[in-house]
Amino acid sequence: MKTLTLQEVAKHNTKDDLWIVIHGKVYDLTNFLPEHPGGPRIILKYAGQDATDAFDPIHPPDIIDRYLSAEACMGEINEEELEATEKVETEEQKQTRIAHENKPNLDEMLNSFDFEGVAKSVLKPEAWAYYSSGADDEITLRENHNAFHRLWLKPRVMVDVEKVDMSTSMLGTKTSMPLYITATALGKLGHPDGEKVLTLASAEQDIIQMIPTLASCSFNELIGARAQNQTQWFQLYVNKDRAITEKLVRHAEASGVKGLFITVDAPQLGRREKDMRQKYSADDPEQLVESKAKVTRSQGAARAISTFIDPSLNWNDVKWFRSITKMPILLKGVQTAEDAVLAARHGCQGVVLSNHGGRQLDFAPSGIEILPEVMEALKAEGLDKNFEVYVDGGIRRGTDIFKAIALGAKGVGIGRPALYAMSSYGVDGVVKLVQLLKDELEMVMRLMGTPTVADIKPEMIDLRNIKSHVGSIPSDNLALSVYDSMRTRIGGPKL
Amino acid sequence: MKTLTLQEVAKHNTKDDLWIVIHGKVYDLTNFLPEHPGGPRIILKYAGQDATDAFDPIHPPDIIDRYLSAEACMGEINEEELEATEKVETEEQKQTRIAHENKPNLDEMLNSFDFEGVAKSVLKPEAWAYYSSGADDEITLRENHNAFHRLWLKPRVMVDVEKVDMSTSMLGTKTSMPLYITATALGKLGHPDGEKVLTLASAEQDIIQMIPTLASCSFNELIGARAQNQTQWFQLYVNKDRAITEKLVRHAEASGVKGLFITVDAPQLGRREKDMRQKYSADDPEQLVESKAKVTRSQGAARAISTFIDPSLNWNDVKWFRSITKMPILLKGVQTAEDAVLAARHGCQGVVLSNHGGRQLDFAPSGIEILPEVMEALKAEGLDKNFEVYVDGGIRRGTDIFKAIALGAKGVGIGRPALYAMSSYGVDGVVKLVQLLKDELEMVMRLMGTPTVADIKPEMIDLRNIKSHVGSIPSDNLALSVYDSMRTRIGGPKL
Amino acid sequence: MKTLTLQEVAKHNTKDDLWIVIHGKVYDLTNFLPEHPGGPRIILKYAGQDATDAFDPIHPPDIIDRYLSAEACMGEINEEELEATEKVETEEQKQTRIAHENKPNLDEMLNSFDFEGVAKSVLKPEAWAYYSSGADDEITLRENHNAFHRLWLKPRVMVDVEKVDMSTSMLGTKTSMPLYITATALGKLGHPDGEKVLTLASAEQDIIQMIPTLASCSFNELIGARAQNQTQWFQLYVNKDRAITEKLVRHAEASGVKGLFITVDAPQLGRREKDMRQKYSADDPEQLVESKAKVTRSQGAARAISTFIDPSLNWNDVKWFRSITKMPILLKGVQTAEDAVLAARHGCQGVVLSNHGGRQLDFAPSGIEILPEVMEALKAEGLDKNFEVYVDGGIRRGTDIFKAIALGAKGVGIGRPALYAMSSYGVDGVVKLVQLLKDELEMVMRLMGTPTVADIKPEMIDLRNIKSHVGSIPSDNLALSVYDSMRTRIGGPKL
Amino acid sequence: MKTLTLQEVAKHNTKDDLWIVIHGKVYDLTNFLPEHPGGPRIILKYAGQDATDAFDPIHPPDIIDRYLSAEACMGEINEEELEATEKVETEEQKQTRIAHENKPNLDEMLNSFDFEGVAKSVLKPEAWAYYSSGADDEITLRENHNAFHRLWLKPRVMVDVEKVDMSTSMLGTKTSMPLYITATALGKLGHPDGEKVLTLASAEQDIIQMIPTLASCSFNELIGARAQNQTQWFQLYVNKDRAITEKLVRHAEASGVKGLFITVDAPQLGRREKDMRQKYSADDPEQLVESKAKVTRSQGAARAISTFIDPSLNWNDVKWFRSITKMPILLKGVQTAEDAVLAARHGCQGVVLSNHGGRQLDFAPSGIEILPEVMEALKAEGLDKNFEVYVDGGIRRGTDIFKAIALGAKGVGIGRPALYAMSSYGVDGVVKLVQLLKDELEMVMRLMGTPTVADIKPEMIDLRNIKSHVGSIPSDNLALSVYDSMRTRIGGPKL
Repeated sequence: MKTLTLQEVAKHNTKDDLWIVIHGKVYDLTNFLPEHPGGPRIILKYAGQDATDAFDPIHPPDIIDRYLSAEACMGEINEEELEATEKVETEEQKQTRIAHENKPNLDEMLNSFDFEGVAKSVLKPEAWAYYSSGADDEITLRENHNAFHRLWLKPRVMVDVEKVDMSTSMLGTKTSMPLYITATALGKLGHPDGEKVLTLASAEQDIIQMIPTLASCSFNELIGARAQNQTQWFQLYVNKDRAITEKLVRHAEASGVKGLFITVDAPQLGRREKDMRQKYSADDPEQLVESKAKVTRSQGAARAISTFIDPSLNWNDVKWFRSITKMPILLKGVQTAEDAVLAARHGCQGVVLSNHGGRQLDFAPSGIEILPEVMEALKAEGLDKNFEVYVDGGIRRGTDIFKAIALGAKGVGIGRPALYAMSSYGVDGVVKLVQLLKDELEMVMRLMGTPTVADIKPEMIDLRNIKSHVGSIPSDNLALSVYDSMRTRIGGPKL
Repeated sequence: MKTLTLQEVAKHNTKDDLWIVIHGKVYDLTNFLPEHPGGPRIILKYAGQDATDAFDPIHPPDIIDRYLSAEACMGEINEEELEATEKVETEEQKQTRIAHENKPNLDEMLNSFDFEGVAKSVLKPEAWAYYSSGADDEITLRENHNAFHRLWLKPRVMVDVEKVDMSTSMLGTKTSMPLYITATALGKLGHPDGEKVLTLASAEQDIIQMIPTLASCSFNELIGARAQNQTQWFQLYVNKDRAITEKLVRHAEASGVKGLFITVDAPQLGRREKDMRQKYSADDPEQLVESKAKVTRSQGAARAISTFIDPSLNWNDVKWFRSITKMPILLKGVQTAEDAVLAARHGCQGVVLSNHGGRQLDFAPSGIEILPEVMEALKAEGLDKNFEVYVDGGIRRGTDIFKAIALGAKGVGIGRPALYAMSSYGVDGVVKLVQLLKDELEMVMRLMGTPTVADIKPEMIDLRNIKSHVGSIPSDNLALSVYDSMRTRIGGPKL
Repeated sequence: MKTLTLQEVAKHNTKDDLWIVIHGKVYDLTNFLPEHPGGPRIILKYAGQDATDAFDPIHPPDIIDRYLSAEACMGEINEEELEATEKVETEEQKQTRIAHENKPNLDEMLNSFDFEGVAKSVLKPEAWAYYSSGADDEITLRENHNAFHRLWLKPRVMVDVEKVDMSTSMLGTKTSMPLYITATALGKLGHPDGEKVLTLASAEQDIIQMIPTLASCSFNELIGARAQNQTQWFQLYVNKDRAITEKLVRHAEASGVKGLFITVDAPQLGRREKDMRQKYSADDPEQLVESKAKVTRSQGAARAISTFIDPSLNWNDVKWFRSITKMPILLKGVQTAEDAVLAARHGCQGVVLSNHGGRQLDFAPSGIEILPEVMEALKAEGLDKNFEVYVDGGIRRGTDIFKAIALGAKGVGIGRPALYAMSSYGVDGVVKLVQLLKDELEMVMRLMGTPTVADIKPEMIDLRNIKSHVGSIPSDNLALSVYDSMRTRIGGPKL
Repeated sequence: MKTLTLQEVAKHNTKDDLWIVIHGKVYDLTNFLPEHPGGPRIILKYAGQDATDAFDPIHPPDIIDRYLSAEACMGEINEEELEATEKVETEEQKQTRIAHENKPNLDEMLNSFDFEGVAKSVLKPEAWAYYSSGADDEITLRENHNAFHRLWLKPRVMVDVEKVDMSTSMLGTKTSMPLYITATALGKLGHPDGEKVLTLASAEQDIIQMIPTLASCSFNELIGARAQNQTQWFQLYVNKDRAITEKLVRHAEASGVKGLFITVDAPQLGRREKDMRQKYSADDPEQLVESKAKVTRSQGAARAISTFIDPSLNWNDVKWFRSITKMPILLKGVQTAEDAVLAARHGCQGVVLSNHGGRQLDFAPSGIEILPEVMEALKAEGLDKNFEVYVDGGIRRGTDIFKAIALGAKGVGIGRPALYAMSSYGVDGVVKLVQLLKDELEMVMRLMGTPTVADIKPEMIDLRNIKSHVGSIPSDNLALSVYDSMRTRIGGPKL
């Protein structure tokens, strides 16, 4: 392979002659530019430069081989030169490094929200935007946790709770608590080791990890990091090309994966405006300024990576999946009792009640809200045996886990909290997060009078208000603005 | 016609001798002053000066001929002199120009609210006040969008949604989506080309435009701007003088208008305090200061233009309308199931459930709130066939459109969002707004499992909370002011 | 009578030798000091000085003669000296004068809240505290208006509303609208002419005034100010000494008063903490500093004036009232359907559903909330004929009046809004306030399709949420503090 | 005993050789360090120093004898030297002293919230954190008072309320009002005299005090401070070692205690994050900085003192308690109707509906919320005679007391308000607090038409909304941020 200098590459920096360096190799992307799923803008930003740092968190390691022909590779950069260059720290990298150096001690993290606060301060803006964003007005995003606030507990006292055992089993695997880490994309945006961090922490805490299709680490890396006896599941985005999907599924099963979770709530990836907004402000190379209004804009990290997903997926496909794997098949993203019943009828082993973390459809209900009606419908049809119902979305406290279990869930998944802990403190952070949730759940089980998971019952939840989506009523601004609010003699500000 | 100089005109600047220049012609308004529907104050402000810029956005071009006798015209200004004079940019014009030059790029607009923010920054204060204001405390104004927040979705999965088709037909016209641009007054306050901007953008996006009676452009201009195959409807304020009304209706039909929408919620135009407040602060000529408390004040742009509307309009009039036109007749502003049924019984082709954008009666319900009971009442009476129900008010998102269609609406109208897009970016802005709404609606239809408009069903909406007007409860200020709210270790401010 | 100098009086300035000047007369209050219903503190503040300005707004003009023996009067001040002295403007008077000079023009007042804002800026702090305060946490105070926000309208269209007539009759009196000015105490705190201002404005607007027992003007002054054909009612606090009460009632009837409203919600006057707090900060004479913790503190203006009220008043007393007057007897402050029925059974002509403007019992319901159940109970017992039900509390808009009438009230009373208008602009202010309410009510009647008061029906109100006292739920501060709220590209602040 | 100098002690300041001075005695805590229930960190902070001030408020006076062997005492400090040393005022003590000197006069306290504001300003941060904190997100903590806000009153008028008698009896004791001071731990954090302050104030106001197991004063001190005829109850945490418990119970009965309240809602003490956070920031000795992430952190004052509590306590234990005492036995911390019924069936004399002041389990319901269903269940089972139901949590106003009594409670307990009053003003403060609550309750009883406690009935409460836990709905930030809120002409800020 031809050896090139960075100086040489730098000359090819227009959209009609566009070279880029990735992992030391030089690619001519002139022809590829208009086809880039993430839009041309982001590539133009790195025209004539090394784009490795921007490339890595978004793309699986093997993607170049899959998308570019061999001829696109123009040569490689002399390794020595590359290393010398890479040593220069950009202003952005410096900011991130300083934020990381100054973050609080790990043992100051008292709850999952603490990790979110730290993550916001240490993540690069585009990573924060990608992780934290939701669909449209983010009503569902916030509703996911808020819905738990409409559920109240009915604690029983005078029960011997000296020993509390929160272990359970999910799809036949014993696990230390009814919680798993769910699949989330682009882990390397938050941590250089990507989703492997979650694998290691899950092993350490004896909980299950669900491997994402859109991991930044390759599937094999995550399988390779698995500890002995550790259980992994696999989340699948179904490809328009079913041969690719079949290969993935068979490979997963062969690799010892214990459950297949097919995502059904994302025939098209959602509009996440924070992510879209971030895209705009971040990637604004000067050579584009004059033609601003014309360039087709990328629509954020989310949509850049999802063009392969098959929107024609339907109930008839379940049979085919059944034919290619013996793994339990579960549908992830079911949002009605009707579809849960259909899933059972089509021979699935379970569903995840989920709205994709509020990232897809605003005003989709939270999983916890529909859980009671799902359980009731399954029971009414006699389909609740050997069918496991999971919930993800909005789990932040031990009480949230308890409520989901009480209402019939076999377990719950956490996504963002794990990403935030990972981004802030790596493996130790995720371990600490899970420990905190265990502490909280143990406390709740003790105070509820339920020494084991089996003791947790639906009648312990007051779910009267579960459907009450009220609030957000227009305020009476004139009256409020002239009202002189009461104040204590010494105290906080006037309200 | 006599030629006059501006210097000469300037001498007639008292209420007892008052000349004004409009479009180069000089009028003696001394006698007209007390009769001006907009009040004398605004005329006095321009006494002895050229009032064209203030006159244009409020008045239809042909109004002077209709209201003033020929003798009131005292002559005309030398064209050369006028042009020289007009070249001077006022401070206000300068501010508006700068705001327009510095506004964000059009492709940074991600949703309808973005346009509203830009419009607020580029519009003249009186235009913003006129467009954005509502009745009384603006409870209904805000409720219109908020009401959609009490409606939640029940998304169905595993449906083939590869192709999504959002086209439909309204009053027999095929249209690209179930959305039209509704009638709004005084378009030139926001854009020099007025409502013609909306005509052009509607054509480009293949949606229907409803032409307003109180357009700043003349009816013929808007008809003239129509593209081939473009459909227009006509909104009618019924004049006390029915001959005028008849002329308008017959002319509209002859001009190819496809539907007549009679406004029935405005026998008197509403009190809009922001508009009234703006009026006061803006129009305060020095010669009036000493007699402040005495002058009858104008009550804002809205009421200035509406004195001709007939408050005696009633059900008996429908027959007469039927007799003068073959266009479908719809009542715009129906707010109860009872009146929707009456409309059908009186032979109307449909209704628009609307509260006039919250501009008329505070605590009138939103159209979306009453839609289910309207559909139920029509069905109960067997009147739902060949009767089309539309909704306007508060439509801001694709989910809003979806919800209205699901609950039985044939289509929805947008008013302010189009005005804001028009005021900010002209035709391109309105086109972009409609594209965004199409993007959103397509996404919602795909994620709801409804590939066509016909697939959208009432059972997909959870409308349990539609009637819940709670909130606004007095807060416990003493307790809140001493409560020390929790904070994450790093994060936002104390709440 | 002996003539004294101010210098001489100034020597008697300790609690053991305490003289004070009121209206030019010198009183020795040494013995009276501990018995002062308003507490000794306020008297000590003026020890040895002229206390007329502080005395006037709190005390009826004839009170000294009733409470002090003739011997307490030590003489009078030379008139010339007094006048000279009075010319000096205190800092407080200066502030008030300036505030009044700089207040907005009257015609900038667009609604009742505008008057409240102005009143807050022009009133002396103790006057604002007395007028604006309510019981405990002021939940009921604010609920009174908020309750109307839970009532929504069902407007009817296509009704001939060319002519709108809002006149009605109350207790047999024709009046221009179903609104009266209710009884409120201490008018001179807000305006030097006290409640006479309200008499004059009521006459001008052809509405009824209710004369308060605790007026700062004497009863005869208010009767004397009455215009021909003007109707006045009388509000009665029942005295422990029934002879006094009888005298008052007989005198009222003889003076042409047309209705007797017996206050039944104030056996003890409420704790109003703003008023109590103000008392403390305002009245802190230096000579008391050293013994701060010991002095019994006055409990605000309210309780200072109310010690005579009889807490033993009960149903048996109605008969006696019946025996001493032919005026219609109504109970003011009824708060349950049960008591409304009892009032009718005991021969009263009506009730006012009222919680004393939220000044007595926090968490008492608003009058409008209980109105429907009151009407239903009266009807169920066949007691609704010849029995008039009024509502006061929280009336601020024309829609409020409409809602009360629709639900069965014969009329509504306003208290604070009239005080605020009076305090800000005197008679003109109150006239303007009533005009605004007429404008609003006329608009509402027109837009509701109800040309006369008789057309206003219960079914025009959606009262589904009338009993929904929810809200005030603890917020999720951790989640809120890390949530990054969405923002438009240009717009308001982050929320 | 050997006499040592402080200089000598100062040398033993590492974790491998650690001496500390408490009350003049020197202890070698090297071996005890890892076993300290409060964690090693706090001990390390005082290594080589006098720790008396930190020790006192957390530990009962006799604890050292119980936990340390005699050999651990290395000698004593020369008294003279100690006194000299103690005279130096630390910065923290200085701040506290100044805050106390500048606090408002006691008679400026108008309600219980005022005391809370003052306490926040005068307490040391760790004391404020300990007293004010609650479990998890403090939803239940705040809900406790908020729940009362969903209960509205139905006041009856025309009742003779000249004399109001609020006295009642609880467990056979006559008391001046249906209120007692409940058990709270660590009183010396707030006041040097600890819970004795509450004993003295209770005597003065003729109300009952419940003595806590975890008092900073010894049990005997609190019994010793009892006035003649004063009634005390005893709150019991059941020890894992039942012999200790038996000794405590028998001693209490012998000491004249009139009721035994066994805490059943705390098998493990709650996670109180404010308290945990405070711990971290306060106790950060420099020698620990380098190993920050490793040291096991203390979990706040609460958990430090509670390791002895027996989590295996269950219904079978009631019989044993019955066998060792003749005192009435009540369970404190019952939270469901089912458990109240069980308590009655197991022969208890009553229950306290309580969630431990919101300090244990977040989303536990408030006592007042479950009171109606508890009373109903007891009645349904015929168990409501001779069984007394109490409520604590969130009592801040006279209306709160009234509501609890009306719904069936025999009395209510206050905890934090008494601590805040005690911390701010000692005995006088607590007396004033109780007086204010008496003033408020008397007012409420008068205005409700209930001259005696026996007149207070369930039908006087509108409890329709008692179960409405709604609110906290995601806000529509985009719409809110562009909405231009209405303002009065003069008034408060834009909202």
